[in-house]
Amino acid sequence: MTRYRAVLSYVGTHFHGWQIQSNAPRTVQAVLEEALACFSGEQPRVVAAGRTDAGVHAHGQVVHFALERRREPRRIRGGVNAHLPWDVKLLAVDEASPGFDARRDAAWKEYLYRWSRAAVIPPRDAFFVAPISRNADAGRMRAAAELLPGERDFGVFGAQLPSGESFVRKLHFVEVEECGEEIHVLFRGDAFLRGMIRSICGLLADSGRGKVEPERARELLETGERRLLSPKAPAKGLTLVRVHYEKREPDPS
Amino acid sequence: MTRYRAVLSYVGTHFHGWQIQSNAPRTVQAVLEEALACFSGEQPRVVAAGRTDAGVHAHGQVVHFALERRREPRRIRGGVNAHLPWDVKLLAVDEASPGFDARRDAAWKEYLYRWSRAAVIPPRDAFFVAPISRNADAGRMRAAAELLPGERDFGVFGAQLPSGESFVRKLHFVEVEECGEEIHVLFRGDAFLRGMIRSICGLLADSGRGKVEPERARELLETGERRLLSPKAPAKGLTLVRVHYEKREPDPS
Repeated sequence: MTRYRAVLSYVGTHFHGWQIQSNAPRTVQAVLEEALACFSGEQPRVVAAGRTDAGVHAHGQVVHFALERRREPRRIRGGVNAHLPWDVKLLAVDEASPGFDARRDAAWKEYLYRWSRAAVIPPRDAFFVAPISRNADAGRMRAAAELLPGERDFGVFGAQLPSGESFVRKLHFVEVEECGEEIHVLFRGDAFLRGMIRSICGLLADSGRGKVEPERARELLETGERRLLSPKAPAKGLTLVRVHYEKREPDPS
Repeated sequence: MTRYRAVLSYVGTHFHGWQIQSNAPRTVQAVLEEALACFSGEQPRVVAAGRTDAGVHAHGQVVHFALERRREPRRIRGGVNAHLPWDVKLLAVDEASPGFDARRDAAWKEYLYRWSRAAVIPPRDAFFVAPISRNADAGRMRAAAELLPGERDFGVFGAQLPSGESFVRKLHFVEVEECGEEIHVLFRGDAFLRGMIRSICGLLADSGRGKVEPERARELLETGERRLLSPKAPAKGLTLVRVHYEKREPDPS
């Protein structure tokens, strides 16, 4: 068996997220495994660094898979891409060490959330940008964002976990930036709870439009009171932009 | 009758160009006139500054139309957008002077062409970027581009015209710029012949990959020999980005 690592880019709009599900047919994992099977005649399983939710995009998703027959990485990229639909493509394929695990070995991941304050979002951005009111205040969003980083229990922002599992994650930074009419928020962390970023983005949006005070972030972390949460921000604004690996494997992004 | 001017953005991929045709159903003009009719109960005709071809995008297209009943421009924008599909939206609507003509009054227009030298074009750019070989040389493309501007007969690059019509157009500049793996070319001119930009882009691409010398541009203009033309560049790389009007009307872009 030869193990490969690939960098993947997809528009999440028409996918029911990353993970294969018994009921929802079109997931990125299912489409990619099918293309790999068509290309190779084998049935490889694919493991991704980040299991993105329905509607979430990825630009630098990293995956691993193994093939019995060894092949030139460039041929894998071209051959698999020929079987993939327009909305998901392999940007790069490399041979990986036998023990490489795209999820377990990831040192940190970066996610970008995009809002637009424009009255009308141009069609070309419609899949990738969530609307926010014209007078949303990036300074207030930043004030809330700065209260979040650290190694702590983020359980209030995440989906329920099987009992006994830890809600502790290390969030390196949450950076709020104004780009013309858009507001961008970049998250870096070692791992994220399911739904955690969109839940935090809901809080930032409410803080930006003055519905809650920025200090709500601290309150949520300290009390864990889910009734203080804001509604989750829409999936379409979110993109997994980068996965970083330490040493053993060269950084693919 | 009250006349309005609107700025329009569309993804051209799923349209048969701007202009209503008897055979091809889905054109931007047809879809926009239908949405205006649904909103207003009237049957206004819409005139655009630039009649983009099938597959060509627009970000700052300008149009005019007239309605018998006067309405608040913001209400027109919201009401018409509610009837428009995701791939075309009105970004702005203003009342215009009674004689305003989006096409005739345009002082100049800017078009942007995007190529990517990446081995794989990421899905999010797939509708908007044409591929070009990794070793395409932007310097050679620039050398060809610099031979083009001026007020002259561009007939060799354009579609046939009814006899007696002039092929003379004024091309202000053709700027070639490298943006990471992409090569961008910005055209500004008072008007363009049908197919002219994509024909010029074909020449620039062939010049960039060393298939023809940059001086081919001069040769084409001087001889008018169509057999020296390169194949047209794909429509998807092209976007109408801006239309500029002098004085009487404020610039909508």
